[in-house]
Formats: sequence, C-alpha cells, structure tokens
Amino acid sequence: MSFFLKLKKLDFSTGNEPVVVINEKEAEFYGVIPGDRIQLTWNNKLKRIAEVRTTASKVKPGEIGLFKELWNKKDIQIKNDVVEVEIVSRPPSIQAIRKKLFGKKLDYQEIYSIIKDIVDDRLSEIETTYYVASSYLRDYTLDELYYTSKAVAETGEMLNLNVPAVDKHSVGGLPGNRTTMIVVPIVSSLGLYIPKTSSRAITSPSGTADTMEVLAPVTFSMSEIKKIVKKVHACMVWGGGVNLAPADDKIVRLTRPLGIEPYDKMIVSIMAKKVAMGVDYLVLDLPVGPTTKIPKNKFADEIEKKFIFLGKKFGMKIKVIRTPSYEPVGRGIGPALEARDVLRVLQQKDLRPIDLENKAVKLAGYLLELADYCKVGRGAKIAQRQLASGDADRQMKKIIEAQGGNPEIDSDEVALGALNYEIHAKKSGRVIFINNRAINEICVNLGAPTDKIAGIHMHVHYRDKVRVKDKLFTLYAQSQDRINLALKALEKNSIVEIK
Amino acid sequence: MSFFLKLKKLDFSTGNEPVVVINEKEAEFYGVIPGDRIQLTWNNKLKRIAEVRTTASKVKPGEIGLFKELWNKKDIQIKNDVVEVEIVSRPPSIQAIRKKLFGKKLDYQEIYSIIKDIVDDRLSEIETTYYVASSYLRDYTLDELYYTSKAVAETGEMLNLNVPAVDKHSVGGLPGNRTTMIVVPIVSSLGLYIPKTSSRAITSPSGTADTMEVLAPVTFSMSEIKKIVKKVHACMVWGGGVNLAPADDKIVRLTRPLGIEPYDKMIVSIMAKKVAMGVDYLVLDLPVGPTTKIPKNKFADEIEKKFIFLGKKFGMKIKVIRTPSYEPVGRGIGPALEARDVLRVLQQKDLRPIDLENKAVKLAGYLLELADYCKVGRGAKIAQRQLASGDADRQMKKIIEAQGGNPEIDSDEVALGALNYEIHAKKSGRVIFINNRAINEICVNLGAPTDKIAGIHMHVHYRDKVRVKDKLFTLYAQSQDRINLALKALEKNSIVEIK
Repeated sequence: MSFFLKLKKLDFSTGNEPVVVINEKEAEFYGVIPGDRIQLTWNNKLKRIAEVRTTASKVKPGEIGLFKELWNKKDIQIKNDVVEVEIVSRPPSIQAIRKKLFGKKLDYQEIYSIIKDIVDDRLSEIETTYYVASSYLRDYTLDELYYTSKAVAETGEMLNLNVPAVDKHSVGGLPGNRTTMIVVPIVSSLGLYIPKTSSRAITSPSGTADTMEVLAPVTFSMSEIKKIVKKVHACMVWGGGVNLAPADDKIVRLTRPLGIEPYDKMIVSIMAKKVAMGVDYLVLDLPVGPTTKIPKNKFADEIEKKFIFLGKKFGMKIKVIRTPSYEPVGRGIGPALEARDVLRVLQQKDLRPIDLENKAVKLAGYLLELADYCKVGRGAKIAQRQLASGDADRQMKKIIEAQGGNPEIDSDEVALGALNYEIHAKKSGRVIFINNRAINEICVNLGAPTDKIAGIHMHVHYRDKVRVKDKLFTLYAQSQDRINLALKALEKNSIVEIK
Repeated sequence: MSFFLKLKKLDFSTGNEPVVVINEKEAEFYGVIPGDRIQLTWNNKLKRIAEVRTTASKVKPGEIGLFKELWNKKDIQIKNDVVEVEIVSRPPSIQAIRKKLFGKKLDYQEIYSIIKDIVDDRLSEIETTYYVASSYLRDYTLDELYYTSKAVAETGEMLNLNVPAVDKHSVGGLPGNRTTMIVVPIVSSLGLYIPKTSSRAITSPSGTADTMEVLAPVTFSMSEIKKIVKKVHACMVWGGGVNLAPADDKIVRLTRPLGIEPYDKMIVSIMAKKVAMGVDYLVLDLPVGPTTKIPKNKFADEIEKKFIFLGKKFGMKIKVIRTPSYEPVGRGIGPALEARDVLRVLQQKDLRPIDLENKAVKLAGYLLELADYCKVGRGAKIAQRQLASGDADRQMKKIIEAQGGNPEIDSDEVALGALNYEIHAKKSGRVIFINNRAINEICVNLGAPTDKIAGIHMHVHYRDKVRVKDKLFTLYAQSQDRINLALKALEKNSIVEIK
C-alpha cells in the first residue's frame, strides 16, 4: 500500500545511495523504520528507490525531505509537488528469520539471503540477533547446517588452487598445542598442498597466527596467499587478513553477551572456512577434557557425526581424531615460547617437547593416509622420517622465507630478552591437576599475546612426580610490573596441583 | 576467577556509580564487556563494586583506570598499587534467558529477574532481544504467561483503590470503536469504579487517549488518578503518563523490526496493565475480521482460553466477547470526529451512530452482569436506560470536569474549523467491502492524530445500497495540502467498494 507526501528539498548529500527523510511520527504510522527502502513515484511514471531516515523536527508530518542526490536530477519536478511513497518490501531475509523463529525449516535460498544480508549490513543488529537466537533454540537440521556453511563460505572470498588441498584443524581451548606449525611443514615437504589459515587469540594467550607471526608476517591478501602456496605448497597465515567467511565474525560478536557458542555455530564456522579455502582432505582434532571446549565424549560424538555428514555434502574427506586432554601440549604458552617449542621440534633439539612432536606426527600421519599419500598405518612413520631427516625443517624455512620472515632463526633465539621468574614446588608429591584456564589467564596477566615474549614455560607434566623446590614453571614478561601481577594472581589461582 | 591489574588515576567523573576503565584487548581476554560489574579488592580486604568501560588507548593492557569517585576516597591507596579484579557474575537474568533459549521452563523468580533487569536497563538491547526471541519460538506455558504478566505488572506502578474495580478492553485494529468513552460513564453512573487507562495511537489515526484528549487532559500521575477515581468513580487517562507495565514498552519496541507481535506478548501486555490498575472484573472485546488483529476465530479461541486461565490466577473475573468486524464502529475516524460520535451518543442526538451506541450498551451490559450489579440478561437494558435518562451524559460531564476539561461542550462544537471534502459514489450498487486499513492510512495522510480535527466521517455502512452521486464519506483536514495528499492516496487505495 502506498501513501502520499509533499516534497521538500534538503541541502544534504550522502554522495552515495539516495536518502529521504520522513517525520518520525509519520514514519511510525506507516511502519517505516530508518534503513527501510521505499519507492518514490512522480506522476505515476518516474520511479526512484531511496533509503529512509527519520527526524523529529527537520521534516514536518505530511512532508518528505529529499537529499541532493534526488532533487539534483533534471528529470525530477520538485516545486509544490506530491510524491507517491511505497514501502519496498523488507529484505526477504526478514521473512526467512521470522520463519526460522517460528520453527520452520529453511531452504538454501532463504539461508543465503540471511547470510548475505548480514555480510552486506542490510540487517540490523537486532534483526541479526533474532536469527542467531533461533540457532540456540533448536539444533540445525543436517541440511540447514550444510546450507549455512555453504552460504557463509560463498559470501566471502574463496581460494581456488586447482589442485587437491589438505588441512588440519584443532578445536581450541587447549594451551600450547601448536601442532599446526609442525604438521604443515611435514606434509608440504612431501609435495601436498596445505593452505592453512589460523586465528589470532580471542580468549587465549596466543592463536596459531600470533605464534607464526614471531617467525614471519601472517597478513596477506588472497592473491598473495595463492602465490605463496603455489610456490612452496603451504602457507600459515591469519584468516582475519582476508575476507574469509565474514558473516561468521559478525555472528560471533552477537553470541558474546550470552557467553556460550552453540556447537552448531562452531561447526559452521570451521566448515565454512575450510570450504572457502578449497580443502579436500581434513583431519580434525577434537581435544576432549575438563577444561577444553568439549568436556564430554558424547558432545564429541555429535560433532563428529555432523562433520562427517558435511564432508560428504561438500566432497571433503574428513577424519576426526579425539585427544583426551588434561594439560598443555608442549611446554611453552605464549607466542614466542610456543614458537620456540615448534622450532625445537623441527630442528630436533634435545630440549624439544616430545608430547608436541608425537601429537603433530600422529596428525600429520593421519592426513597423509587420508589424502592417499600412503597406506593406512604408514603415515606416522613417514611423518617422523621427515622430521628426523631435516626435510620438515628445510620446508619450514622455505615457508618462513616465502612469507617474508628470517628463515635462519634458531630456536634458542626466539624467546630471548624477557624477564623471567621461576616457580618451585612447595611440597613433594605427584602432579594431579593442571589448570588450563588458570594458565591462559595468568599468561594474559603477563602480557600475552600483545607482548610476544610473555607467557609460561612448563617444567612438569600431568602425573609427574616432583620433590619440594623442583621447578614447576617459569613466568616470562617484559616488565617486573607484569611479573608482579602474575604473582598476585598466582596467590589466588593455582596452576599445578600436587598431592 | 580473578585477575590483577595496576591502578591508574583517571580524571573523569560520572557523579554517579563508580566506573573503571580496562583496555579493550585485555577486557576481551577476560570476557568482560562494557556494562559488566566487577569487584575490586585492595590488600585482600577493602572491596568496591564498579561498572566497566573499555578503551583502545586511554588505559594500557595490565592497567585499570579508576574514575574520580573511586580514587577520591581516603581509604583507597593508589600509588603503585595493584588491585584484584573479580567479575561479579553476570545478572542472574542472563542465566534465565539462556535457559529459556534452550527451551527450558522458567519459574517466577527467573522471569521476574529478566523483567526487572529490562526495566532497570541492566540488560542490553541484544540480551533483551534474545529473551524476546524465545517467545516467538514457542508459546509460553500457561504458568509462564501468568508469571510474566505478574512480573510486568509488579515492576511498574500499581493503583490500589481498596474497592472492587471493573474495566473493559477492546483489542485494537478497528477504526473508530470508541465504546470505552460510552461504557465508562454508563457503568460509573451506577456507582461502579472504573479506572480506565488507554493508549495513544501507534499505527492508527487515534487511540482512545487521543480522542478523550479532545475533551479533557489525559496525562496524570498515579496519585492524581487515584484522587479522580475516588471522586467520580472513573477516569479515562493515558496509560503512558504513568509508569504502567514499563517492561512492555521496551519489549514492544524490539518486536517492531520483525513486524509481528506474538499473541502471547499481546496477552501479557493487556493483563499486566489490568493487574497493575487493580481490576477485578474485565469485559474483553475481541474484534474478529479480515483487517483486524485477529483475523480468524481459531486464534480468538486460543486467546480466550489463556485470558480465562489468567483471570483465575489473578482472581479477576473475565468475560470475552467476540464481535465480527467488517467496518469501523461509529461514523468518525480521527480524534475529534470520534469524540463527536461519542458525545452524540451520550447526548442522545438524532445524528448519533447507532452501531456505536449498540456495541457500547452491549459491552456495558455484560460488565454490569459480570460484576453482579444485576442478573444475567438485564445488563443491556440498564445500560440503555442510563443513556436515555441522561445519567450517563451527566456522569461524562463529571469525569471531564474532574480531569480538567470543559464539561459543557456540545457534540456539534467538537469538530468545527476544518476544511472538508466529500467523496461521492461513482456508480450505484451495494457496499460490499470497507477497507479498514485504507481508512487508517488515509486518516494519517490527513494529519491524524497530531491534528485532532483530521480524519474521515463515513456516510455509508457495509451492505448499504447506494446510488450514483450519494455521499460515501467526508475528508477533514486543517489544510488543502492535506486534502490533496489524501485525494492522491485515494486514487490508489479505495475505501468503499461498490458492486
């Protein structure tokens, strides 16, 4: 239905989309809200689409104010003229959100319209929240999970290598755990393509992108990424540097106030990014344990089932690995300390953390088998050989160089220049609990990830026997202030429990 | 879990609640968002609660900036000091919203915590949207409907008359339909108490409050309302003038972007206001018809069932009346034209709209019977007698006077001073459709409700026979511009269909 308003020139300009201004009281009557698009018709012929703003005073009821973009045009008559105003239907995505809220299933077109409008800012935060809310209320159907992952991938940039690509992904929540930076050089040293994107830390002391950044730049455009991967078969870059699955970031921000991320949302986020990067073979590492994102095996069952389904739909072979997790993987937590661990493994130093090496070799092995590089049961041995022979280390140097870092860096140079402070056992006994959450929080107190050097180096493992005065862990920071903050925090929150 | 930050004085003041500022990056790690409350502890003893703001640059990571309210206090040591920061748990209402989102039922305490936090602005718009979203996804249980109505009533102002009170309510969507202004003087002329609050127009040319305002002021405090009702047994005031069910307004605003109000929300909104006004007997008028809020009888069945349940819970006797509705009730639409109709009925003028009188008499009759003023079957006769005897008119004068209006106003004086324009039939035939939505929209084009005088006076009824050139309706407005806008709109949208 349409209504009629008297034209008024306004001396404003957007330089962009035409804008009209309606009195806010009048707008309310017609159910028009700021941001709506309306169609103006002059003399039943000339038509223009414009975006609505409202005003309490600048435009009187019964009038419609036109920005310069509209009245500047020669063909538009303004003087004492009246225009017909029709509300262009709200974006179809609003209809789809309503449908979803009322518990109906959505098809691909509907889900795509929502995701596309989120990306293009055509939905308000409130409207988007209604959409996000619908995913808390009931699980997606498997089809909806597929449609959503596809739409989130396709509304962002995509990499097309024209060759089969492999990838590994660890679900977060575990300190250290920098297997990526060992798996990538191992499998790419064998000729496989692995275009790896990682995130920066959000609620942890370091993301893989932060750790890699100790060794080389990680922010590249999609065409630069393509060049790097074509050249050295691999990259380790920051996903946020390209427009990868942009809807995901906007949705994540709206889930923060509630403090919970539904698993379905996490699954969509991971799958969409893998699809966008053109991954064909994926090993997915699900750490299961009391202080990880997945505390129980039954949740892991559900997640695995959904990934396998999605893999089939996208033509992606997926192998899900579960790792029972009670402590950090590796000894360092914080960008530089983790990078030192990684280099020690690649350079096969005596001091290298064997747990990190073993986990990386296992994951690399599964990936080799999944991608039919070798028979099942052979992967880990091949991966181990690449480490022992130095091939993985040489490949890492090529990747670092291709990304503009210094390939000649030695593991012992990475974490120099920090103040450090050792924490010793107050009694003898066995390590019965390591508090991953406390490690993360104290590392942040020490300044990670902004201070690359800040963090914790663990000297003990879960179930180790320790004697009084044994070193438990070392704090690293750039200033005594930071060390003091961490010491205060340690009075409250214990990291290592001995009994 | 707590963390430690170094204190920094900031030369800012709120004059109100203590505020601390944390670096936004650091805040993100700890999951603290602006508006969260945290507890600061000095030396394990002194504690303060403060509200968090975040900054990109004013405060460095590892520091916490204190507003003057905090560091001004003698007992707080600032110099080089470190403070322990604990996040005071998010409002319990967030937990309740999460629970509801995951499909669990809420008890009264939980619902109260949500509603109270909405009223007190302790929940953000995004958080409140999650709550509102949950009511789209599935109906409230009857208990939840009760708890919500109770909480919405009790978190606002309430009227306590200490005498039994009656009320009538018409669900909106029908033009004209000003039965309230006839029912109220009829039943109060018989000694019943009827403390009536009404709304202003939101998406229509006039609300009852707008129409009553033609005759007297309608904005009063709760204590003024109490005085008026004690004196003349009745009032007809604007509900928005008191803090009546304030959560409702905030929730309504968030449902606008989706363009649908769930029936359960409407039920809560009506019940909460009746409970707040201390109503004991309620006649509820549900207009059912193609262009009303309730297009089908099956929706009316559901709504009736829920109101009857709620009535029992609140100890309120409720009678639900359905009126099949195909056209405006009365002849005038727009504040002054409706007020003229009302006065013509009360003053029993020959020109009075009989449909409006009949509907009002019927509703008043039901109300008298429901409140045990008379036997069932007698109410309408008594109501009709009050009109015929002039008692209702004399009572209306008392109410107008008590609210500060001119009690001597005559019906014919109300709508003077406007331009008008008659619309005639272009052919002979029968009126087969009257478009209520088009009436509402064209009245707004004419300037209603801001221009009290603006609106439409109908000369024909649904199913009337008309001859070519018969008057169909008259447009009223303050200016020729407005008449012209309406004429343009009428070229597109027909109000009366003749066949």
